[in-house]
Amino acid sequence: MKPLSDSWRHCVGTGRINLALRSDYRESLALVRRDIGFRHIRGHGLLSDDMGVHRKSAVDGGVRYSFTYLDQVFDTYLELGIRPFVELGFMPTALASGEDTVFWWKGNITPPRDHAEWAALVRAVLLHLVDRYGVDEVRTWPVEVWNEPNLVNFWKDADQDAYFRLYETTARAVKDVDAGLQVGGPALSPGADDWWAPFADFVSRRDVPVDFVSRHAYASGPAQQIPFGTYQTLDAPHALLDQFDAPRKHLAGTRLAGLPVHITEFNTSYRPDNPIHDTAYNAAYLAPVLVGGLDLADSYSYWTFCDVFEEDNVPTSVFHGGFGLLTHRQVPKPTYHLYAFLARMGAWVLARGDDHLVCVDGDGRVTVLAWQPVGGTDGPDAGERHEVRVSFALRGPRAFVRRERVNEHDGNAFAAWRELGRPASPDTRTFDVLRDCARPAVEHRSVAVEAGRVELRLSLARHEVTFVEVLPVRPQEHTGLDDRRLLGASDDRLVAEHER
Amino acid sequence: MKPLSDSWRHCVGTGRINLALRSDYRESLALVRRDIGFRHIRGHGLLSDDMGVHRKSAVDGGVRYSFTYLDQVFDTYLELGIRPFVELGFMPTALASGEDTVFWWKGNITPPRDHAEWAALVRAVLLHLVDRYGVDEVRTWPVEVWNEPNLVNFWKDADQDAYFRLYETTARAVKDVDAGLQVGGPALSPGADDWWAPFADFVSRRDVPVDFVSRHAYASGPAQQIPFGTYQTLDAPHALLDQFDAPRKHLAGTRLAGLPVHITEFNTSYRPDNPIHDTAYNAAYLAPVLVGGLDLADSYSYWTFCDVFEEDNVPTSVFHGGFGLLTHRQVPKPTYHLYAFLARMGAWVLARGDDHLVCVDGDGRVTVLAWQPVGGTDGPDAGERHEVRVSFALRGPRAFVRRERVNEHDGNAFAAWRELGRPASPDTRTFDVLRDCARPAVEHRSVAVEAGRVELRLSLARHEVTFVEVLPVRPQEHTGLDDRRLLGASDDRLVAEHER
Amino acid sequence: MKPLSDSWRHCVGTGRINLALRSDYRESLALVRRDIGFRHIRGHGLLSDDMGVHRKSAVDGGVRYSFTYLDQVFDTYLELGIRPFVELGFMPTALASGEDTVFWWKGNITPPRDHAEWAALVRAVLLHLVDRYGVDEVRTWPVEVWNEPNLVNFWKDADQDAYFRLYETTARAVKDVDAGLQVGGPALSPGADDWWAPFADFVSRRDVPVDFVSRHAYASGPAQQIPFGTYQTLDAPHALLDQFDAPRKHLAGTRLAGLPVHITEFNTSYRPDNPIHDTAYNAAYLAPVLVGGLDLADSYSYWTFCDVFEEDNVPTSVFHGGFGLLTHRQVPKPTYHLYAFLARMGAWVLARGDDHLVCVDGDGRVTVLAWQPVGGTDGPDAGERHEVRVSFALRGPRAFVRRERVNEHDGNAFAAWRELGRPASPDTRTFDVLRDCARPAVEHRSVAVEAGRVELRLSLARHEVTFVEVLPVRPQEHTGLDDRRLLGASDDRLVAEHER
Amino acid sequence: MKPLSDSWRHCVGTGRINLALRSDYRESLALVRRDIGFRHIRGHGLLSDDMGVHRKSAVDGGVRYSFTYLDQVFDTYLELGIRPFVELGFMPTALASGEDTVFWWKGNITPPRDHAEWAALVRAVLLHLVDRYGVDEVRTWPVEVWNEPNLVNFWKDADQDAYFRLYETTARAVKDVDAGLQVGGPALSPGADDWWAPFADFVSRRDVPVDFVSRHAYASGPAQQIPFGTYQTLDAPHALLDQFDAPRKHLAGTRLAGLPVHITEFNTSYRPDNPIHDTAYNAAYLAPVLVGGLDLADSYSYWTFCDVFEEDNVPTSVFHGGFGLLTHRQVPKPTYHLYAFLARMGAWVLARGDDHLVCVDGDGRVTVLAWQPVGGTDGPDAGERHEVRVSFALRGPRAFVRRERVNEHDGNAFAAWRELGRPASPDTRTFDVLRDCARPAVEHRSVAVEAGRVELRLSLARHEVTFVEVLPVRPQEHTGLDDRRLLGASDDRLVAEHER
Repeated sequence: MKPLSDSWRHCVGTGRINLALRSDYRESLALVRRDIGFRHIRGHGLLSDDMGVHRKSAVDGGVRYSFTYLDQVFDTYLELGIRPFVELGFMPTALASGEDTVFWWKGNITPPRDHAEWAALVRAVLLHLVDRYGVDEVRTWPVEVWNEPNLVNFWKDADQDAYFRLYETTARAVKDVDAGLQVGGPALSPGADDWWAPFADFVSRRDVPVDFVSRHAYASGPAQQIPFGTYQTLDAPHALLDQFDAPRKHLAGTRLAGLPVHITEFNTSYRPDNPIHDTAYNAAYLAPVLVGGLDLADSYSYWTFCDVFEEDNVPTSVFHGGFGLLTHRQVPKPTYHLYAFLARMGAWVLARGDDHLVCVDGDGRVTVLAWQPVGGTDGPDAGERHEVRVSFALRGPRAFVRRERVNEHDGNAFAAWRELGRPASPDTRTFDVLRDCARPAVEHRSVAVEAGRVELRLSLARHEVTFVEVLPVRPQEHTGLDDRRLLGASDDRLVAEHER
Repeated sequence: MKPLSDSWRHCVGTGRINLALRSDYRESLALVRRDIGFRHIRGHGLLSDDMGVHRKSAVDGGVRYSFTYLDQVFDTYLELGIRPFVELGFMPTALASGEDTVFWWKGNITPPRDHAEWAALVRAVLLHLVDRYGVDEVRTWPVEVWNEPNLVNFWKDADQDAYFRLYETTARAVKDVDAGLQVGGPALSPGADDWWAPFADFVSRRDVPVDFVSRHAYASGPAQQIPFGTYQTLDAPHALLDQFDAPRKHLAGTRLAGLPVHITEFNTSYRPDNPIHDTAYNAAYLAPVLVGGLDLADSYSYWTFCDVFEEDNVPTSVFHGGFGLLTHRQVPKPTYHLYAFLARMGAWVLARGDDHLVCVDGDGRVTVLAWQPVGGTDGPDAGERHEVRVSFALRGPRAFVRRERVNEHDGNAFAAWRELGRPASPDTRTFDVLRDCARPAVEHRSVAVEAGRVELRLSLARHEVTFVEVLPVRPQEHTGLDDRRLLGASDDRLVAEHER
Repeated sequence: MKPLSDSWRHCVGTGRINLALRSDYRESLALVRRDIGFRHIRGHGLLSDDMGVHRKSAVDGGVRYSFTYLDQVFDTYLELGIRPFVELGFMPTALASGEDTVFWWKGNITPPRDHAEWAALVRAVLLHLVDRYGVDEVRTWPVEVWNEPNLVNFWKDADQDAYFRLYETTARAVKDVDAGLQVGGPALSPGADDWWAPFADFVSRRDVPVDFVSRHAYASGPAQQIPFGTYQTLDAPHALLDQFDAPRKHLAGTRLAGLPVHITEFNTSYRPDNPIHDTAYNAAYLAPVLVGGLDLADSYSYWTFCDVFEEDNVPTSVFHGGFGLLTHRQVPKPTYHLYAFLARMGAWVLARGDDHLVCVDGDGRVTVLAWQPVGGTDGPDAGERHEVRVSFALRGPRAFVRRERVNEHDGNAFAAWRELGRPASPDTRTFDVLRDCARPAVEHRSVAVEAGRVELRLSLARHEVTFVEVLPVRPQEHTGLDDRRLLGASDDRLVAEHER
Repeated sequence: MKPLSDSWRHCVGTGRINLALRSDYRESLALVRRDIGFRHIRGHGLLSDDMGVHRKSAVDGGVRYSFTYLDQVFDTYLELGIRPFVELGFMPTALASGEDTVFWWKGNITPPRDHAEWAALVRAVLLHLVDRYGVDEVRTWPVEVWNEPNLVNFWKDADQDAYFRLYETTARAVKDVDAGLQVGGPALSPGADDWWAPFADFVSRRDVPVDFVSRHAYASGPAQQIPFGTYQTLDAPHALLDQFDAPRKHLAGTRLAGLPVHITEFNTSYRPDNPIHDTAYNAAYLAPVLVGGLDLADSYSYWTFCDVFEEDNVPTSVFHGGFGLLTHRQVPKPTYHLYAFLARMGAWVLARGDDHLVCVDGDGRVTVLAWQPVGGTDGPDAGERHEVRVSFALRGPRAFVRRERVNEHDGNAFAAWRELGRPASPDTRTFDVLRDCARPAVEHRSVAVEAGRVELRLSLARHEVTFVEVLPVRPQEHTGLDDRRLLGASDDRLVAEHER
């Protein structure tokens, strides 16, 4: 048996780093750590003005590097047991060569006015991190240079030469601090596979350090906007897996072949206001992607863990199509449960299929993740039900089977919210109702192990993701106990259960 | 409309007071406070040796009153927002006239060696309480004299004259401290209605203070013991209501007529090892008792809030037929949910019936408690399903309906525990499974309000207790939103929901 | 005896409202609530863009009022037991008539493009608050119109007529929602007493609602800036009291005479980067102001409770001269202790003087607040020590005296930080050291009550603020106890203490 | 340099195991874990009736092993990060050969009625532990057979042959479960060194497993009792070290030579009601014992971590001479601070003396523990002050020196309690006062490093234990900063501090 690898939870995305100062963010991250256990976290804006790292005095023009907020954020991450996946960007205004910005919060996307000053800033940041957290710790944090330089939104004119220059300056500055630090890029958006060859060529030619390569993956088509919202088409799930796989293909034969590949962002839609993110459909769509990705990349980082996120201004409603696994105030969405289910799978893979994954632990506990396959905009309608059958060996005479279900109704706060009339700003009681309706439905029963095997027939509802835990049972003897003597048990059902 | 009175949660029972020092007890009490909100708590053994209140020095024979543990317990109660219902007993060994004891923990049940010393002890305790907590606070705590003196187990020879003497000494000692303190008795067990007339006569004749009267109510027949367990027959639920009503009947025309009546203990079975307490049957059985009791007594105190309880020695298994609403480590039983449901009912009674209670709040929220009636040992079998229909007025165009179900399968940790093979001492993971399976099943939907009314048809499973919350909904407008554009929503179901 | 009024803690200032979303802020506020107990909290920027209240769709130009963050902030306040003192401002960009802004975070300070739209916004906000929190609650929240309109920094051209027009529109919009809401202004900065007469005249003439008047008070002179810091001169403490008193003087005889006066901001210096705020000098300077203010205003609101504050960009160091009672990560400054001491004073004022305040509680507990008077830049040097003598009646034979001291060394994290080499970004261990050194020094002893009185001679160190608590003692008898038999106690000191 | 070994905190004692179910106990243990970090915990009564492990049915006489409480206790220990040091005893009543008991709580001290049944019980307990916690974990838990069998109080007739038989039965039963489990004894009280030779002889002769040896150490003379208290004489501290050393001496040359030696109990006095335990004298007395013991034994276990303890009945007062480092409700005693100071010492021993220990960490932090030597009943009076001088190398130009002091006044809740009139049952406010007065006094300053060294002259008060932490300081530059410009700093003191 193969072990279930951790690449599905190696990393998760977050709104801009400054948002990590917020309570709602921290409480959400604590929950995500407890239930899912992501190892690293990656977001934009570490060097943007609102982090106050690069400060120029108005009195004498002197520069001071300041870590007031950076320390608060990284201290919090480490306290919560999650490590940074450092993205270096965007440009501090006082260091920028231009005024172009991205997002509502105005991240400056122009090259540095002066590459030496930029290198000094990068060295100062890394030195501070090594000083504060220890070099052994910081060596485990990948350092990625910029974000999606192939798009004009994120990098002035999407200028490839300018990015390569920035990459080189940055990578060398990082290595100046400690040769053991890991640096990589080029953090491409989908549709930029023509950058791979020049990137490999550039770094090879100039012998620039590269410890990993990275790109992003999204499955959505063009945005059709409505006020405070967006609709989009979706490709089939396999489109995402193809994107995961692209770096390896394109780098085969280059000096970069064999390097770790990190998909540093992925999701169905790349829009922070597409309601698809709030649905059970999103979970059913991504289930085979999470399982399929295990073979294709060293990590693929869900963009993002929660809806504390402001790229397109402050959300106007609790459900607003945000990327988050959780929306505001820790209301889990169906995709949250998909991840939480996967986190409870066993250590060893017993079986994999188009609609299921079966694992087992050393103590005999068997777990099943099953889903209804869905096909994106052009796929066939998923149907009202989907049957999954799995069968596996189990020790002992009986088993306890517990199942949790998430679909268009169960474990679906978004469904409850619509039934509640879509309150933009729910009161405390309504938030409690939403969290309550967000819990997966639970079923349990006792089954006989027949000929050393258990066979499960699982009937899934529309867009369902199901988690099943099967525990071997050793019934304990209690002399004199006779359930038939319990009132209301006259029909022998209670008793029968042990005799089936 | 009548307000829903609080008498059902005026008081709850507890294992002996010393057990309140324990963590498991305190965590359970905190949960019960949060979810149910009992006002007072009553248990045995306040003056028993393990509380260390009455201490005699072996060196010089001097007596010291000590409140080390008493303060810890009452401080805890008040911190948790629950007040003592003080039961004075049992006898400190150094003050006892004999060696007879009750329970595994050996509460001494003999009269005081010296009534003056007993009175001094009572005064010292009450004075300390008034000093520590303030007289206004302590005046809200009823003080009950002894427990079930009509039984030889609890009072030497069940000697009525001796009890009346104890009552008089005690009541006068209490009033010596402050005339505003409330004292009462005689805390009779079932089957002792012949004590009422003599008690009324005695206190009238001698002008002894009585501020309330108290008795207990149980519905179970003789114990048929097995190792570490007991089975019993049960009368019909109405038997309990008759017992609640008995003091008023028997005291009519006496000086005690019109005094508050406290049922200071009640449950189905009086045995701490009868598995009935762990079942959904117990909850269905007690539902009409909790609702019916509202008219009959000023309080009826469920015996007891949790299974941290040792009358018959240390429980040998997590489920062991204990009285508790919670078993060890905060695993809720079905009857816990019955109480928690009642705690969430609205402020005003809209309708009552044999199988339901409907309430409403000022903001229009309607709540329904419904149950399948069950009849005790000689009643007919309850059947596989039970239908309840309720109908009520509601403002606005639509309503959100949320339902929670507890029955032989849902919200039933005892059922899951049996399926798990009845592990006496579950590990941490199994405790998590039990707590998870103890959650009521949740359903929700949107319904149209037709002609200003909502009609609910509730189908209950075997031994089910159901809670329904109906919230008026004002749908909010979100320009441009069109659920038909969401992937997987092509069948118009999502849309239809707002047009029904 | 007069009760000690609550006006000193009626309100406290805060950095812009958006910062209330942060963890460091919330943890600091929780501490301040626990130790000081401010009733209300007031800050800028409720309507600024980063709160997202007024949102205009880029798709169809429609306006949506959104309360995503406002609800999070006010929910937090109320959970923590503190109420808003609502300041309406600054101008949402989409509603502004110009582009002038204040502060690093760019609050727009121009009048509304359209007064009807502004009035609609004000009504929408107040309606939402009343809907969410209930009208009875919101009626207790003062609503202040704008901030320091007499300064060009805060109001375009400091245009008085334009402010009066804004005031009228706003006040009428507030009262449209509910006539019981309290509205006021004009929130003047120091040096603008010439605004009182025209304001009184304007509102009288047009019968505009005014429920309270407000202004600010600061004692500092012009700023002399260094990189990331500022030095200033300070007037004597009485200058602040004169400012507190000014509204009553200037409004005498107008229709506004007798209205509640709220000093909605005050501090020594008005600069967020003046190190004076971090010192013991600041506490000693403000002690007589807090006590003297009790007679002069209905509230005076310390600006601000913590250093999570960004008017002049992100602080570059943990101590940076911020306004806060606490600097980042809950390190208390000396002025924090001044407030915490005052919060522990008794209910009734026994004596007041230039360097002390003595209070007593119903149970006989006596408390003393004493300080070394300091005089601002032109005052004499304070000297190395200052003696305070107080004398008061006390019941019983002995007293327990506990004293806490804050001065240039004790209870002074800023002193420790300088000794530590002024680390801009301390590590976790250093933060622990700072918090430890921030605790007041504690002394305690037993004194005899002589002739029914206790006399205390308190020797204060440089810039000290001292708190003394005197508890009447009833020694308890413990038969046989003899401290002379304790090892090391042979010198009778332990014994002597009870015989002095 | 030698590392500072962990033997001083390898283990700590506790009241009987059943008390671990209590909240006060658990909160105290959590504190002790946080501040001191003991590795193991050992107490009596694991098999006594109140743990309910060995249960005999009254219905059919069958025996059931039950772990309801044992699991709660050990789960708690492990959650808190402390491991059991298992002591097997006392005898379950249903398995006992006689009725002799020890302590108020009546632990049965007679041999088993049937050694086979006892062995079955031991195996059942160990099997359960291995099953629940894993064999790797349980192998780290020493298993000790019985307690002080050389005393008639603890073992019927102090019968050596009977103990050896019990030891053999038990040790073999333990090894039956897993050969890797560690078993040992004989848990002798002081004054029983004549048992070593026969014990070594017995186990050698019969080849009985022994993985470690254990004994206890106390320094007190005969008890002179007063009501609810005891006074005793004390030998000099070295008497305890001699006792630590005795097993190695007596076992030299036997088969048991070289085995780990665990001092499974030690303290000044062996009485749970001797006020010496509450004093600073106790801490000063034990300081050289904790340091001296590092060379002599593999562990020495302070008896006990808190005053939740009932050997001699329920304590009648918050301070009552209990063994605990903490008295009830987490009030630390001086000896608590001695341990907490030791827990903060550095990793490497730099110097040791009669009145001090100096350690250093890898990052250059130096720590000093110093104490005033005291000599027991016959030693000379300690004097009013004691001077300690230490000198050590330090990197960098300056150092930050922080000192914490515990003596007859500072960090001394017992002193404050006496000044408060010895309230037996303090109210909540008084408990807060006690905890506040229990904090060590803190001093801090900046010193210059001269010629690469720091020299400290520490003046200790009567019975003082002092902890000093010296941190190397790298002053950070802040352009333009000039403390002379701060108000009140005109005397150059602030400035001077950096120039000394």
